[in-house]
Amino acid sequence: MFALPEKESRAPSTCPGPASTQDLDSNCGDGLERECSRKPDQKLPELYGVGDPTAGFSSNSSHLSSRGGIIKWFWDSAEAGYRTYHMDEYDEDKNPSGIINLGTSENKLCFDLLSKRLSQSDMLRVEPALLQYPDWRGHLFLREEVARFLSFYCKSPVPLQAENVVVLNGCASVFSALATVLCEVGEAFLIPAPYYGAITQHVCLYGNVRLVSVYLDSEVTGPDTRPFQLTVEKLEMALQGANSQGIKVKGLILINPQNPLGDIYSPAELQNFLEFAKRHELHVMVDEVYMLSVFEESVGYRSVLSLERLPDPQRTHVMWATSKDFGMSGLRFGTLYTENRDVATAVASLCRYHGLSGLVQHQMAQLLRDRDWINQVYLPENHARLKAAHTYVAGELRALGIPFLSRGAGFFIWADLRKYLPEGSFEEERRLWRRFLDHKVLVSFGKAFECKEPGWFRLVFSDKAHRLCLGMQRVRQVLEGKSQVAEDPPACQTQEPRDRHR
Amino acid sequence: MFALPEKESRAPSTCPGPASTQDLDSNCGDGLERECSRKPDQKLPELYGVGDPTAGFSSNSSHLSSRGGIIKWFWDSAEAGYRTYHMDEYDEDKNPSGIINLGTSENKLCFDLLSKRLSQSDMLRVEPALLQYPDWRGHLFLREEVARFLSFYCKSPVPLQAENVVVLNGCASVFSALATVLCEVGEAFLIPAPYYGAITQHVCLYGNVRLVSVYLDSEVTGPDTRPFQLTVEKLEMALQGANSQGIKVKGLILINPQNPLGDIYSPAELQNFLEFAKRHELHVMVDEVYMLSVFEESVGYRSVLSLERLPDPQRTHVMWATSKDFGMSGLRFGTLYTENRDVATAVASLCRYHGLSGLVQHQMAQLLRDRDWINQVYLPENHARLKAAHTYVAGELRALGIPFLSRGAGFFIWADLRKYLPEGSFEEERRLWRRFLDHKVLVSFGKAFECKEPGWFRLVFSDKAHRLCLGMQRVRQVLEGKSQVAEDPPACQTQEPRDRHR
Repeated sequence: MFALPEKESRAPSTCPGPASTQDLDSNCGDGLERECSRKPDQKLPELYGVGDPTAGFSSNSSHLSSRGGIIKWFWDSAEAGYRTYHMDEYDEDKNPSGIINLGTSENKLCFDLLSKRLSQSDMLRVEPALLQYPDWRGHLFLREEVARFLSFYCKSPVPLQAENVVVLNGCASVFSALATVLCEVGEAFLIPAPYYGAITQHVCLYGNVRLVSVYLDSEVTGPDTRPFQLTVEKLEMALQGANSQGIKVKGLILINPQNPLGDIYSPAELQNFLEFAKRHELHVMVDEVYMLSVFEESVGYRSVLSLERLPDPQRTHVMWATSKDFGMSGLRFGTLYTENRDVATAVASLCRYHGLSGLVQHQMAQLLRDRDWINQVYLPENHARLKAAHTYVAGELRALGIPFLSRGAGFFIWADLRKYLPEGSFEEERRLWRRFLDHKVLVSFGKAFECKEPGWFRLVFSDKAHRLCLGMQRVRQVLEGKSQVAEDPPACQTQEPRDRHR
Repeated sequence: MFALPEKESRAPSTCPGPASTQDLDSNCGDGLERECSRKPDQKLPELYGVGDPTAGFSSNSSHLSSRGGIIKWFWDSAEAGYRTYHMDEYDEDKNPSGIINLGTSENKLCFDLLSKRLSQSDMLRVEPALLQYPDWRGHLFLREEVARFLSFYCKSPVPLQAENVVVLNGCASVFSALATVLCEVGEAFLIPAPYYGAITQHVCLYGNVRLVSVYLDSEVTGPDTRPFQLTVEKLEMALQGANSQGIKVKGLILINPQNPLGDIYSPAELQNFLEFAKRHELHVMVDEVYMLSVFEESVGYRSVLSLERLPDPQRTHVMWATSKDFGMSGLRFGTLYTENRDVATAVASLCRYHGLSGLVQHQMAQLLRDRDWINQVYLPENHARLKAAHTYVAGELRALGIPFLSRGAGFFIWADLRKYLPEGSFEEERRLWRRFLDHKVLVSFGKAFECKEPGWFRLVFSDKAHRLCLGMQRVRQVLEGKSQVAEDPPACQTQEPRDRHR
């Protein structure tokens, strides 16, 4: 998927690979549907890993700086895979044998609802204040709306304050800004791995900040109760390991619901991780971009903002966006919530480079305040469609005898294809991924998420039924060793089974 | 306007001060209306200056990194001045004795035309492709439109290519991205001073790149034919000076039409500057954000893209935006044009942090392709209004006996108030600026543009007649030593003289 440069150091192994230019993140969930029976690699366990994406690269263009060369490399390496996809995208009418995308974590199930809402007349408002230089933190009317929205949906014990809100053009920018204002060059954040790989770039490209992976195992051992379980003990060990290498760790990144695991942290776990961070004076960045995409009510998801008391509110920074929960990754709206005014101000100072149009700020305020539409139309329908799509893909995987994780949140299933890798190597993982692509289905491999066990793949299910059906047919053909894409794909209806949108 | 930290090094002198959180840039033009008669400071001439905004600062918050502290400082220092303004903004109905803003370079003359155009039904289009992850360089339909638009308005000898276009959320982001991909940390760009001060932050906050000022004089000496004239000789001397200090200079920034001077480089001058850059293997970043705001046709402005042959096309990078020429600084649309694919790709790789909404991309494409409206409605009317507003303020300055520069481009007049500074110090300049603010009129002082001669001020004239009238009354009161703002302002009509919009 992504071409590593010749003689690359360990550094490129932390690059997000397929997740680079698009959101090729892959999620699953943490209810193990079938036990992960295959043992992890027999070598000594790796407990942490320090990524330094800038090591070992050199710019081969005399016109770019060395960091410019690295920045370009990230684009090129991701492009290598995406070029294949974009040259041959599936289209049911124009290119029915094109590539089906189960790789990009986008919710394509609700464009009908969104188009209708965003086309209403209240959305197009042009007034001088929206066309002039904004408050770089975001217009006050929008920050107030965000505070009310998060208070309600995060179930905060007290109303959240507009003063603590900063609005940016997406969470990639929030990561970039936070890394820069919290860390010196070369300092690091802890992050449980596997994780959404693009974060490597977000903290590195501008901020030159590294990630220290807290490697999680699929095998359930010791006190663990589920695969890839994060514990304070693992955090402590990774922190000690980094310290022993002279790496200064400044913070911890938590993704909740997790991507690609789809894991949900319980309030008690959250509290423990926050206490761990407080003990070590670490900032905690909590990425909650999937918080409204929990489609199984029984999961009992809790936002960090719902906790009665944050152990270290001055070092706790929460991010959310409309990209996932409102299926609008192209809208570019993200937000930071932090009680730390210094951090909010420093991030605001960078917002000249992360600003979004006043017209879009108006649209977002209109959307977020429309509680009737969100509660009575959008969320119930979105959750129903996510659930149906998930059920279908989960059923297909079960039929194939493939173990997978899935807990009822996010857009993805984290599938264990280790049985198809005789040697259990990343090279095999990559070859399998390439076979999928050759058979016209794009998925994401675990290495892109810094998963330490070869053989895990992320499959995105938040797409229309006929595309899912065709995609899963192709997955099956690859796994069953059939070398040809069927000329006449069998029973995938181009009409959705129950209704047009599923 | 901006509070310098205690014991600041020379560094803060390069900070844009009032231009920080808003676009407090100030322009003029290069036709000297009255000869600048006052001699510059008698001390030895400074020919260049190396700015290092990061020197001498330390973060006073244990929660921020040292660079985070600097980033926050830029916000706070600008806020100090803006807080006064925003707490007491003029409003003809609600706060008629509030502060009139002649400081922010925004065109407030055409909101009626823009509102009407942007409210048309073709502007609100919601389709899946616009809501999904974009090509980070910008949607192809928009890059094609930008290429056609620039080909036409820059009068390029051959059609420009969409492949060379990258779309970002404003030119601040273009500067930030270019500085990062072209320079190592601590390297520098040459820039003729006075210049739009916010560029200091744009290249520094993320990129940690410095500016080397090429100081220009108001006095016309030697072969110069106009005040503040840039010549290759001055560029050479500044470059040598930087080299002798061990500063690695990687490029040259040219603003054309210039801000705050409003200077227009002739094609021959442009060619000379580009040849200079080529000789020294310097990149040239040409900022043409005021290219369609040349309201005197006789000026004969030429875009760098109109040149028959660029001396070093691989190192020539042009930026343009709708902020100034379409009076939409809140819209956040800027673009880079470069034939250097490596540079375009590296900038594109940073576009995850500088992306703009798909819905806005659609709007911008609709606007840029509407040649009838631009040519027959918007530009003629905008130029007529700019000209009328300029005529008014120029007349007021003449009546006050104030020399000024103005050449018929941009939104500002660069006024020589040195006769009001008995000692000719920056401290006096600052006190005069404060007196203006105390008398409810916000202007920009020369120090914010790194002007080396105290006493120059930028006055923005692109506002409605009644606000200009009131603003100029207050300017007059300060300069004539009257200490009170008149309780009943005399003849400033709240209706525009000829029509509502002037």
